[in-house]
Amino acid sequence: MSMATWLADHRLRLLDELFDFIRAPSVSTDPSYADGIARAAEILWARLERIGMQDVQLLDGGGHPAVYGAWLGAPGAPTLLVYGHYDVQPPDPVDQWQSPPFEPTIRDGRIVARGASDDKSPLWIAVSAAEAWLATTGALPVNVKFLLEGEEEIGSRTLPVILERHRDLLAADVLVSADGGRWRPGRPSVNVNSRGNLSLEIAVRMAARDLHSGRYGGPVGNAATVLARLVATLHDEHNRVAVRGFHDGLRSPSNAEIAGMEALGFEEDGFFAEIGARPGAMEPGVRLLESLWLRPTLEVNGLWGGYTGPGGKTVIPCEAHAKLTCRLGPGQAPDYVFDTVAAHLRTHCPAYADLAIHRARDGTPAYAVPEDDRFLAAVERVIERVHGQKPIRVGIGGTLPVSPMVKDALGLETVTLSYAIADEQIHAPNEFFRLSSFEDGLRAWTELFEEAARA
Amino acid sequence: MSMATWLADHRLRLLDELFDFIRAPSVSTDPSYADGIARAAEILWARLERIGMQDVQLLDGGGHPAVYGAWLGAPGAPTLLVYGHYDVQPPDPVDQWQSPPFEPTIRDGRIVARGASDDKSPLWIAVSAAEAWLATTGALPVNVKFLLEGEEEIGSRTLPVILERHRDLLAADVLVSADGGRWRPGRPSVNVNSRGNLSLEIAVRMAARDLHSGRYGGPVGNAATVLARLVATLHDEHNRVAVRGFHDGLRSPSNAEIAGMEALGFEEDGFFAEIGARPGAMEPGVRLLESLWLRPTLEVNGLWGGYTGPGGKTVIPCEAHAKLTCRLGPGQAPDYVFDTVAAHLRTHCPAYADLAIHRARDGTPAYAVPEDDRFLAAVERVIERVHGQKPIRVGIGGTLPVSPMVKDALGLETVTLSYAIADEQIHAPNEFFRLSSFEDGLRAWTELFEEAARA
Repeated sequence: MSMATWLADHRLRLLDELFDFIRAPSVSTDPSYADGIARAAEILWARLERIGMQDVQLLDGGGHPAVYGAWLGAPGAPTLLVYGHYDVQPPDPVDQWQSPPFEPTIRDGRIVARGASDDKSPLWIAVSAAEAWLATTGALPVNVKFLLEGEEEIGSRTLPVILERHRDLLAADVLVSADGGRWRPGRPSVNVNSRGNLSLEIAVRMAARDLHSGRYGGPVGNAATVLARLVATLHDEHNRVAVRGFHDGLRSPSNAEIAGMEALGFEEDGFFAEIGARPGAMEPGVRLLESLWLRPTLEVNGLWGGYTGPGGKTVIPCEAHAKLTCRLGPGQAPDYVFDTVAAHLRTHCPAYADLAIHRARDGTPAYAVPEDDRFLAAVERVIERVHGQKPIRVGIGGTLPVSPMVKDALGLETVTLSYAIADEQIHAPNEFFRLSSFEDGLRAWTELFEEAARA
Repeated sequence: MSMATWLADHRLRLLDELFDFIRAPSVSTDPSYADGIARAAEILWARLERIGMQDVQLLDGGGHPAVYGAWLGAPGAPTLLVYGHYDVQPPDPVDQWQSPPFEPTIRDGRIVARGASDDKSPLWIAVSAAEAWLATTGALPVNVKFLLEGEEEIGSRTLPVILERHRDLLAADVLVSADGGRWRPGRPSVNVNSRGNLSLEIAVRMAARDLHSGRYGGPVGNAATVLARLVATLHDEHNRVAVRGFHDGLRSPSNAEIAGMEALGFEEDGFFAEIGARPGAMEPGVRLLESLWLRPTLEVNGLWGGYTGPGGKTVIPCEAHAKLTCRLGPGQAPDYVFDTVAAHLRTHCPAYADLAIHRARDGTPAYAVPEDDRFLAAVERVIERVHGQKPIRVGIGGTLPVSPMVKDALGLETVTLSYAIADEQIHAPNEFFRLSSFEDGLRAWTELFEEAARA
């Protein structure tokens, strides 16, 4: 049976199984979803065994385990370490979903559910492509090892431990990521770099309890006000990060990167219209694509303090909190950036307030694949064949912690073949994945295994 | 039977009934407590009927009703309109209570419960004093009308309607408030002024949905950051309100007020130690008591935006909110102050953000009783007799909306005889009321009815 026939015959079954996989609510950041994490890992384990992977096992680093399985029957051919993640972001705010977040549905040519785009469908495509080869020919053109982790959404916390413990098991020639994202529909692209990240949480405390704003208002500090002022110092009036030393080490875009961005012909109006926002918040003197792919950010992901229920409560909040994350540009070191932000916050906190700074994760540096990588070239050939157009090289503003980690632990570069698209409302309500991407992705991944053998 | 003997014989029964009253969770700001509001009003109605008040009824202004009852058997004597409120603040944060907020208990000589100090015990004392007169002598030395409202904690929203509709029923010579607060234990005091207030809620919106901080971070504004910056503009670096025009019309303290504050010998160290805070947040050049009693404030009572759950979520919040209230000094007009704050916020909101400003209540101006009021003198004589010391005149930093309202609608001044004390953690967890105040208050209120007859 030809590959195309097999894919046509099995497409609905693959989709049905994908829906089961999505249905497992595998939110990694919230311990109350532990059952969903375990269920998603079980589904992957069973699937890898069923399609003919060998040595299937859970790799434990002390957190949510990674699922591993290998097919090593192509001596002399390269070995691909295929990466994806089975964990997802929380579904909040749940009331903004048009359908339940963990009950996948199809609407307007899209699979709608939490994890549909990030990263369950893209991962499922890679596994299904391996199944297609094994089912139709009994072999793969290359050696394949799957590394499907459960902590990507929490910074791949224990992945370094897993890589360290299983260095030999995971040895390969390249990491091929099914995570990442295509730039936009209809414009073939390949990711060549990603930003790093860093998370911290801060708390301001002023008094032993919330105080009545009438009885105490005037001489007493307000934790919400102090928190707001601290946040306000993080950027200057042009929205540039105003933390001293924050930009130290940041590499400027290369000539090739600048030429690539300029060649893209990016439409700013469409970008803002799609998200329902207005321009004006970007630091001046920076290209929009550079701002998205290469510039560091310092964002408030959440802040809270005092009374936030219905009606009013005339209190002076005694504590207030903010969750902050940075995206890091090439050359920035997470430890150093953390130190600059912490020092800035301590310097700006008034003496009458207590400030606690908690570093939520180790953080990840930015990553870029060498421009002449042979597997990058293989991915580009596959995309050109499937989509009839040479792909453009694009950055990804998000973070693939696995890339710097495998570079560090295993010496591997990362190439990406993901069928997620940047507009699919990932991390937001009504996340979706295009059914057309499911078709294209299956074809591309089956071709990639063949093309990589020639890389 | 003497008054003292009657009070001694009935004290436990009065306390038992007070506990039932406190047990009704009469939170006025949150509609889910509607049953608690209704239950508290029923208890008061029944109590006024039982002690011999006449014409007992609910006065409806379109919100939570006020409870009314009168005894008018002293022709030629003054008529006191006795004021209190049966509604309470929300119990949040509930997990910081040592005992359930609506299950009153006695601990260390204190009644501990939401509403124990503000205002259920002080109100109960006034009603019980009337009962003591009627039970022991069959009459009161003055005419008494009770006006016990259910919306004080939400700015006495419909009280103006009630006053307007029942102008004749409520006609009197003075309003005597059981709400308010003594300055501190062991130092007899009488309230002579109160600050006004004003509430608003603001919302900043930036995009149609929360956005992934990796995919979109850089060119796109962050609603939480913009909200924080707006809040940060509200005060200057010395913590003085920085809103243009905010202080317009504010009356400076009179010489008598300054002399009174200086005579108090206020201990700043003790003030901050009691609340577990450090000094340094007060605008310079202002006395601490002036800051508490006469200076306006602009506080954040609560703020929130983005992801505030466990772990992290790398979103750029598309909206963020804050609840703000002002305390107003003498001479400030709520409408004008609202306009200045709204104009300030609009001026400082960047063009790429949408700002919504909601005025939560009409607001209340500050109030001061004339220094030579004859009922004020009567209250001062009572306090001197009960406590053996001439009371000091003090301000109250909080707001008694009823005072400017009855001045406006009925032409009455307000005097206060409250047995709440400023340190009783009102509006906060573990609110309490001293058992000794229950004793002192019963004696003082029974004497006040006699003393007011001679005013």
